[in-house]
This record gives sequence, C-alpha cells and structure tokens, in this order.
Amino acid sequence: MTTAPDAGTTEPAHAAEVRVGLDALLDFTAAVFRHHGLPQDRATTAARALVHGDLTGVTSHGLTNLTRLYLKLFADGRCDPAAEPEVLADQGAAVLLDSHKALGLWAASEAVDLAAGRALEYGVGLVTVRGATHLGCAGAHAKRAADRGMICLLVSNCGQQRIIRPPGGRAAMLGTNPLAFATPAGPRPPFVLDMSTTVVPTGRVRGAARAGKDIPEGWLEDAEGRPVTDPDALDRGDGYLKWLGGDPETGAFKGYGLGLLVETLGAMLPGAGLGPEPEAWSGSGSPSGQDDNIGFTVLVIAPAELRRKDEFEAQAAGLFDALTGSPAVREDRPVRYPGWFEGERATEYEKSGVPLSAALYEELRQVAAERGLTAPAALDD
Amino acid sequence: MTTAPDAGTTEPAHAAEVRVGLDALLDFTAAVFRHHGLPQDRATTAARALVHGDLTGVTSHGLTNLTRLYLKLFADGRCDPAAEPEVLADQGAAVLLDSHKALGLWAASEAVDLAAGRALEYGVGLVTVRGATHLGCAGAHAKRAADRGMICLLVSNCGQQRIIRPPGGRAAMLGTNPLAFATPAGPRPPFVLDMSTTVVPTGRVRGAARAGKDIPEGWLEDAEGRPVTDPDALDRGDGYLKWLGGDPETGAFKGYGLGLLVETLGAMLPGAGLGPEPEAWSGSGSPSGQDDNIGFTVLVIAPAELRRKDEFEAQAAGLFDALTGSPAVREDRPVRYPGWFEGERATEYEKSGVPLSAALYEELRQVAAERGLTAPAALDD
Repeated sequence: MTTAPDAGTTEPAHAAEVRVGLDALLDFTAAVFRHHGLPQDRATTAARALVHGDLTGVTSHGLTNLTRLYLKLFADGRCDPAAEPEVLADQGAAVLLDSHKALGLWAASEAVDLAAGRALEYGVGLVTVRGATHLGCAGAHAKRAADRGMICLLVSNCGQQRIIRPPGGRAAMLGTNPLAFATPAGPRPPFVLDMSTTVVPTGRVRGAARAGKDIPEGWLEDAEGRPVTDPDALDRGDGYLKWLGGDPETGAFKGYGLGLLVETLGAMLPGAGLGPEPEAWSGSGSPSGQDDNIGFTVLVIAPAELRRKDEFEAQAAGLFDALTGSPAVREDRPVRYPGWFEGERATEYEKSGVPLSAALYEELRQVAAERGLTAPAALDD
Repeated sequence: MTTAPDAGTTEPAHAAEVRVGLDALLDFTAAVFRHHGLPQDRATTAARALVHGDLTGVTSHGLTNLTRLYLKLFADGRCDPAAEPEVLADQGAAVLLDSHKALGLWAASEAVDLAAGRALEYGVGLVTVRGATHLGCAGAHAKRAADRGMICLLVSNCGQQRIIRPPGGRAAMLGTNPLAFATPAGPRPPFVLDMSTTVVPTGRVRGAARAGKDIPEGWLEDAEGRPVTDPDALDRGDGYLKWLGGDPETGAFKGYGLGLLVETLGAMLPGAGLGPEPEAWSGSGSPSGQDDNIGFTVLVIAPAELRRKDEFEAQAAGLFDALTGSPAVREDRPVRYPGWFEGERATEYEKSGVPLSAALYEELRQVAAERGLTAPAALDD
C-alpha cells in the first residue's frame, strides 16, 4: 500500500537497478539543460524538479521524461530555454505572467518562489501564468513553499490537449489537469498531494501497456461506458480514461468538476490555451490539440503572517501525529498521508543513492555521450 | 442524469409539493432568523444562503435544515446570533477572523464579500475563519463572487466532527469536508462546483435510510472494506463512508488527500477545531467530536484586475460554449457542467415559485405558529 494519490507510479524499480548519488544526478541533469541553452541557475532549479520524481519514487515523472518529453520540446522549438517571462500585470499580491515558452520545470518553481515572496508581504500571493510548458511533478514545486513553512496550491491544465470526455459527452475536451497541494506537517515530511483529476494519469495506463498487463476495471471505459481492461485501448482510441469518482453515482461529476476547476483557475484565469475550444469538435481544427500554451496558477499562503508561528507549527504537528498514530486495520500498515512515503524515500535515497532502472541509466549515458558530457557514475553496491 | 457533483440530492420533490413565491420564502426565513436575534441585514443574507438549496434543487441543504440544524444550534447556545466577528490579523490581501460562533450561513457570505473587496484591490483576497458554525451550501456563498465576475474557492472542515476513516485506518478522523468553487461562464449560469470529498455526503445515505431504500455499492464499506448496501449501517456504526475515488486502486488516496486539503487549508490555517486530534482515538476524549469551532477559508480572485475584462469574459463564454455544444452520447442529454442545472432551476423557480415538499411546508407553518410569525403563503396551481 502506498499513500501516493496516483498509487503505483510510486514503486521504485527493483530489478536490474543502478544507484547514482543525488548530487551527481542533479549535476548531470543541470549540465544537460545548460547544454540546451538554459542559464545556470535555471538549469539547477529545473534539474531538482525533474530528479524529484526519481528521488521520491514517482518514477513516471522523473528522468524517464528527459528524452521522451523535455529534449523533444527543445528539438521541436516548443520550449524556449532562454525565454524571459514577462509581467503582464502586478497587483501586489497577484501577478500575471506570460512565460513565453520557458521550461516549465524551472518556471513553476520560480512562480512558487515569487508567490511565496508576495505571501510574506500580503499574507497571500498568487502567480498565474500563460504560455507555459510541461512542469513535471506539480508536487515538487508546491513542496518548495511547504519547506518554508507555507501552504501552496498549484493547478495546471494540459494546454489544448484533450484526453477526457465530459460525462455524457462523445468528444474528449479536457486534459488530466493535475492539482498539487502542500503544507508543513510539523517534524514529519510535508503533506504533499499531487494528483491528476482522472482515476489515474495516462502514464499508469501506458505503463501497463508496455508491461503487457491488463488494467483493473474502473480506469478505462468504452464509448458506451462499459469497463475496458486492455490498456492499449487508450492510444487505440476506443478506451476512454474515467474521471476521479468513476461512474456518475459514485462521484464522476466531482472528478469532472475538479478537472474544470483546474482548467478555469489554472488556464482561463491567465488566458492560456484551453481544452474546451470550439475547434475541438466543430471540425474546423485539430480533433486533439497539443499541450502547448499551458496555463498554471500558484497560490501561496504564509500562515506565520496571520497567526503565531509556533502555534501554527504545533497544530500542524498535532494533526499529523494524530493521523499517523491512529489505529490501523493492519498493524504492519500504519496510517499515513500523501507525501509521507515520498518524504521517507527521499531521505533514504539522499544517503544511499537514487535507484534508476538499468534501461534508464543506459539512456542517460547515451544522452551524455551524444553531448560530450560525463555520465553520472553508478555507485558500487 | 444531473451534473451536480453530489447527484441525487438535487432532484426536486415531485409528490405532494407546495409552491411558495421566492420573495415570500426569503422574507419568512429572514423573519425567523430575526426572531432568534440576528440583525436585519444578517438575517436577509442568511435567508438567501439557506433558501439557495431549495431554489436550486439541492433540497438536502435547504430549509429542511432550519429546524434540524440551525434552530437547534440557537437553542443549544452553539451559535451566537449577535456575535461580532473579530479581526485577528489583516495583511491587506489576507485576513484572519474569529467568527465567535456567528451564524455560518451569514458569516460565509460576509467572508466572500470581504475577500472580493480585497481582490479588487490586490487581485486576490483571502479570508480565513476560526470559530465558525455550519455554513449551509458552500456553493451558495462562492457563487456570490462569480455573480460579480470573480473566481471563488471556499473550503470548510466540519469542526471536530469525525466521520471518515483514513485509508487503512480503524478510527474515523475527518469530516466530509466540503469544497466549493465558482467562476463566471459567460452568459450561461456560473460554473459552481459544490462537493463533499467523500463519494456522497452523509445526507444521501440518511435519505436512503429514511426512504427505506438500499444504497448502491461504493458508498459504504464495512470494517474489512466489503461493500455495504444497507444505509442504516452508517448510523449503526458498522458502515463507513468511502472517500471520493472509492478503493485505493481507483483513487481513494486522492479523495483522502482532498479531504486533508480542506482540513488544512480550511481549518489548520485559521487555527480552528480539527478532526484529527490526539483525543480522537487515545481514549482521553470523545470518540466522535461535534461540529463546533468549524474553520473555513475563502479565496477570491478578480480576473479583471489582471487582464482585460472583455477578453476574460469572451474566453469564459467560449469555454462553456464549447463544452455544452460538444456532441453528446445521447441527444436528449446534452453535455452540461456543475451549476448549470442549478442555475436553470433557479431561473424557473424565481418565476413559478419554489417547490417544497408538503411535509416541509407544514414544518415551516409550525415554525411560524410557534413564534407568532406569518407562514409564507402557498401559491395557487
């Protein structure tokens, strides 16, 4: 059992795995980003956000996306590594930015830090961004604020990408629209919720397809709403991802509503690309857009500007003490919360090295070789 | 099919129903609140929030709660109708209030209006409240901001009430923790999401129990996680409400995480009562707390302070046009969004009168008689 909301992406590889020191992995990843034109400080920030996936066991959003996603964005000109984000409006506590296709892995952390700065001044800070690119693990960015004793909500749409159908609809209109939330939890790892608003993200389905495994009922449905257990149906176009909540009588409209919350707060607010556009189904445009012109919104709250810091911290510690100390159904599976296992893994891997599958390690060695960079050394067992 | 997230609470009564004019119903409800010590303006605001349930078809959160909930709070001294909320901190864009047990039906609308005022100045406004009482339909309050062209998020915990067990836990630790979100949708009714973070709210289960009907699998589970279809199991203590997402493999940790998001943002931030407290399971306190010292947090964003109002409005109209115009699986069931049906019903009932069950109408007549007030007149058919 794992407390990760998208449970199952979070199990580290066990077979044929290589361990690499965290610092070496961060340095290498930053070097790759620098090679592609990112300034040093941005490269360092982006590397930390990307390696966060491997460091916390959320491998579906870690270095495996370096070649599959980010290097392709550079190659296709869909991401501008040297873009200067532009301030379109600044009301003190709230800022609207055009990211101009800057690397989302960096821009989202930067937005959290900007919002945190405003929160220290006004109690709350909001940064809303258009023209963004894929930001990786939303939770990695949100956690930056929690590490500073603050509360953070981060929502991002998927640009004009359309994967999920509204309930009762025949046409895909929305993306998997992630939502992340982080708060301090006293001396324990921060509470970090990082979830798609669908039952599972697409990566879980494609992972099962690559592994040749059936998926459980409840993840995909066919055009008539019947369960689909063949994961290949997703990319074949005859299996549709379900909203969190599953069927209408068990809360599908809540999942759909949360997806729309993310679409409107994350992308309609800043004026980014939207999934639901008339071109989506009128035949005048692409039937399924790309994840360009992503929108995201970051909210940071500074509790210590509103109430005594020690009292807030004591209450946070008490809340998560009470939860994790409460009686469990199985003694060997204590009650936890989202972010706990990820925090425990990060602590372990910082000491013992970050586990990478042999295939991923080989991929990184190739990335290094092709760019004249030094691959990160594998640790001896 | 309904687009309401907590689908099923939203079907208006059909049998033995009485229609009452909206203004008469509002005046009567405000008179009852005035009779119990609310100042005139608060009584008017609270009446609108309560009648919102009946006006939009969310009857589980409408006037049926007048005798069951609010009049009891007054009688028990758990709500102070004349309380003066106290500003504990004011950072400009963010305000911390102690509500001192003021009526939540009024205080939550007041908090939305205060946050909206700050948003006009700073782009974003946040009001976080401790010492609150039950606030009714969270969506009724959030919609106030959307009606003014703004975006609103409202989350509220259930005080120290404990109904739901964390996944893998044996003890109930959290409430059904509602979350509401509202945005303008162009000329259409605003998008209003109003949901508990469980599969269904307790009222749905108790409604089935009163009607003598079984509930679908997926709402309740027994101590070992097996489905329970007997609604009486909830109050008997051997049926446990499930989180949105249902089982761990279909997203229960997301529902749990959203419940914790509401608990921390809604109640840990302002320092209100919490479900997860050491007393919850240590035997030193009540095994199931009351919904006293509720915490709630309101966020309002003013898009027109950040970008051109006409462009924002056009994009909002386009988004909801695209959604509702997209092809439906069944031609007679077009694609809608949360808030659409509620908005349509309100428009109809404002003209034709608000439908009340005969039992509820009789209840209101008794409330009037006991207080020497005039009951609202039933409209002729």
